[in-house]
Amino acid sequence: MAGQREEIEATLDPSDWGEIRQLGHRVVDDVSDYLQTLRDLPVWRPIPEEVRRQFKSSVPRKPEGAAKAYEDFRSHVLPYPLGNHHPRFWGWVNGTGIPIAALAEMLAATINNNTWGGETSPILVERQVLEWLKELLGFPQEASGLLVSGGSMANLVGLAVAVDAKAGFDVAEEGLSAAPKRLVLYASEEVHSSVDKAVRLMGLGFSALRKIPVDDEFRIDISQLERAIASDRADGLHPFCVVGTAGTVNTGATDPLNQLADIAQREGMWFHVDGAFGALSALSPALKQLTSGMERADSLGFDLHKWMYLPSEAACTLVRDSEAHRRAFSTHAPYLSKQEGGVTGTENPFNQYGIQLTRSFKALKVWMSIKEYGSDKFAEIIEQNVEQARYLAGLIEESSHIELLAPVPLNLVNFRFVAPGMSEELLDTLNQTLLVRLQQSGVAVPSQRLIKGRFALCVANTNHRTRREDFDVLVREVEKIGLELLGESETNPSITESATKPRSTWEAPGRGVIGVKGLM
Amino acid sequence: MAGQREEIEATLDPSDWGEIRQLGHRVVDDVSDYLQTLRDLPVWRPIPEEVRRQFKSSVPRKPEGAAKAYEDFRSHVLPYPLGNHHPRFWGWVNGTGIPIAALAEMLAATINNNTWGGETSPILVERQVLEWLKELLGFPQEASGLLVSGGSMANLVGLAVAVDAKAGFDVAEEGLSAAPKRLVLYASEEVHSSVDKAVRLMGLGFSALRKIPVDDEFRIDISQLERAIASDRADGLHPFCVVGTAGTVNTGATDPLNQLADIAQREGMWFHVDGAFGALSALSPALKQLTSGMERADSLGFDLHKWMYLPSEAACTLVRDSEAHRRAFSTHAPYLSKQEGGVTGTENPFNQYGIQLTRSFKALKVWMSIKEYGSDKFAEIIEQNVEQARYLAGLIEESSHIELLAPVPLNLVNFRFVAPGMSEELLDTLNQTLLVRLQQSGVAVPSQRLIKGRFALCVANTNHRTRREDFDVLVREVEKIGLELLGESETNPSITESATKPRSTWEAPGRGVIGVKGLM
Repeated sequence: MAGQREEIEATLDPSDWGEIRQLGHRVVDDVSDYLQTLRDLPVWRPIPEEVRRQFKSSVPRKPEGAAKAYEDFRSHVLPYPLGNHHPRFWGWVNGTGIPIAALAEMLAATINNNTWGGETSPILVERQVLEWLKELLGFPQEASGLLVSGGSMANLVGLAVAVDAKAGFDVAEEGLSAAPKRLVLYASEEVHSSVDKAVRLMGLGFSALRKIPVDDEFRIDISQLERAIASDRADGLHPFCVVGTAGTVNTGATDPLNQLADIAQREGMWFHVDGAFGALSALSPALKQLTSGMERADSLGFDLHKWMYLPSEAACTLVRDSEAHRRAFSTHAPYLSKQEGGVTGTENPFNQYGIQLTRSFKALKVWMSIKEYGSDKFAEIIEQNVEQARYLAGLIEESSHIELLAPVPLNLVNFRFVAPGMSEELLDTLNQTLLVRLQQSGVAVPSQRLIKGRFALCVANTNHRTRREDFDVLVREVEKIGLELLGESETNPSITESATKPRSTWEAPGRGVIGVKGLM
Repeated sequence: MAGQREEIEATLDPSDWGEIRQLGHRVVDDVSDYLQTLRDLPVWRPIPEEVRRQFKSSVPRKPEGAAKAYEDFRSHVLPYPLGNHHPRFWGWVNGTGIPIAALAEMLAATINNNTWGGETSPILVERQVLEWLKELLGFPQEASGLLVSGGSMANLVGLAVAVDAKAGFDVAEEGLSAAPKRLVLYASEEVHSSVDKAVRLMGLGFSALRKIPVDDEFRIDISQLERAIASDRADGLHPFCVVGTAGTVNTGATDPLNQLADIAQREGMWFHVDGAFGALSALSPALKQLTSGMERADSLGFDLHKWMYLPSEAACTLVRDSEAHRRAFSTHAPYLSKQEGGVTGTENPFNQYGIQLTRSFKALKVWMSIKEYGSDKFAEIIEQNVEQARYLAGLIEESSHIELLAPVPLNLVNFRFVAPGMSEELLDTLNQTLLVRLQQSGVAVPSQRLIKGRFALCVANTNHRTRREDFDVLVREVEKIGLELLGESETNPSITESATKPRSTWEAPGRGVIGVKGLM
């Protein structure tokens, strides 16, 4: 009877395990080949119309099979990614990915462990990873932590604890409309937009976030911060938190964290640090002093999928006061309660420290990667990225066509192509066009920034595949495209406008989008 | 010179690609073998002390190598998971996992596409998946959507749009402390704790969530809801949202969604549906009428890592009014602005529809799984899970030792062992002990519920590996352990207390925790 049932009951497991095993081997070979030759592929390319059409069909009701699903990936998806795994991608701030971490993701998806809590090894793996991160960043052992999806969530978790701990009334039960005084918090005007987003989501309102001007090095102006706090207090508001940044997204600046910690302490405020990528620079003895004071934060958010190079999603929040952390997220749900000796027989499940209940086994890729390489290796490549950024800054300073637009304290380089006598407005337009053409060329992908109101090309180097020679290529290409654009604008003064229109079929003159190799 | 640099610059890519390729092949073989024999392994087992000790070491500074990292996974992690990939795991509500989705996760981690936005195929994959989900669930084409981490986030996103759209003042800028009337919302007392969590995080305060009693079938009592809204209006509060549930976590009940939609419409309120697992029952023509009215929701949250069996994390929020959705999450960040023709040359990046900026390529596993199997296959197994739950309910009704504690409208079965003349309190304790012993036996993992204040064992069947024979085994084992406990309590009346103490080395009498196979 059991045998008969076995046959008639449906499952998503393959009837022929040999087939999926064979596909798995093919995927492993393809992935290895692909990563080995990645450097010869374009960083990015526009999607041809015929490929775009492939994504228009309605839901398949009937099976197409695993091999077809993979073939569709290979033909329509693999050639058109963002490119942040590529050696010459430096857009926004993105991590590269690590081969063993991709294997870890397959393993994690196979056991599919819901890592919310319970007596399981995946929980021990995550706890160990958190211990390691506390150790590396100088946080006390009794601090709590949580792996989360990214920097936005890491900041949100830290700030949610801040609200709960510092509101001064029962905000959990009564909500913000019962606040005797409006809660306000402080950050520099260079703070990441995820903090605005968190502040709004938590019902504080955008205007609760006081943005303090920065100095010439894009660090928060301490005296203006102090005046703003005093003025808000005088106006009957409740300053409850100050946010410092370790490595701003625009220039890589780090606020004077020790001074911020002093102010928070004196004022009885929460001190949160957004260390999205900058925090991990503390792994390097040579760079550690840049983030001095970070270890005094009440909460610290940082990504592992940026400057630890892990594939997304992986980030972390550490909270000094573990009880405050738990209080801010715990809810009562009898169906989740602990049963001593059983699956739920452990304390402090992770769902009581953040938003998610079901949680994937993100910790595995962190754990296996740290085991494979050792933390010193990450420190070495972080340092290398900073040295490479200085190398690029040096190339730019040597160039008569390109100029730096901001200091280079860490791994971000802001620059633009310049032409004698051109107005600031025209330079903005020229560099926008240049950036688009550079991206379209497939040679390199920097992204844009606004630096003191001016359009900049920005290289954010959190890439373990990048070599200094890649920056030689970048500078050569920027100069080439810039000079081409100048030539075009002489024959057609409106070129800077027209060139910004969609040109999805555009290819760099004399070179297909694939033929990057010849440049090396 | 380039050659020389290549040698001296560090990378996390392997120096010998053959080694990682070989490890990849080994992982594929191991994973296939493992999944093929999974049924013969214990569902769950306590972690031995010597394994626990392996997770105590401080951060490795020096490399241990990829092979060692994998070996540590195999020895210390793989044998001690939660077990939600196993055919006899029915705890809480968890998905099983799908082989091709594990391959998809490896591919996604390899290209490591930041799926925040931009002109890339991964964005087109996610858009197509969202189109498919709208099509399957009867949502209009113009609705917006977002893949998120899970049901908690899916609800949070929907409710955040509700607050923004229905607050009636500029809550984004001014925050909730500027509300002319306190915002309140409604759900049944069976609502999932993630809704409490969202309400609190958004600064509304737990007490803003009015919990309405349920009827005998655990569905929200409509007339009490209407009275509560009227009474709150009379008290000067602002009812802005009603939350219906499609498939409650306790019993699988579904609120009368059409009636809730009518009320929301009449009252000018937002209608959010938490369809964590229940929503996908609409894929089955036979079950579709249970969730009738769900397609009228303003926002709908549901998991793909529950009743679509995908490995976590994968869930979705759909929002009828796409503009309201975007307004609730958009922030201004110049470094993310669109550059026509370049990488960012597309409209409506996903970061403007949710909390995350960096987003992994979750859509790939959904896309490849739907392509492999076709949506009809998922409908078929969802129906099968419901039929299996009815089969289990039938076995329980035939048993003289086990009783049902709630109706079985869908795929959840609440039951307990009973003994003549035993008080309710003793039955609670007996069944708690029984559940722990059952979990320790490795035979099956149901979890607990509180049903009208009484302790229940609960089977939540969102498992594509389960067969009806697994429920034969479950019932037999529950009866066996229950009768054992009765025998023990006759010789030692305090057994029900002592048995709840930690017994991490406990094994089922006469059987090692591994030897489940003999039962089949």
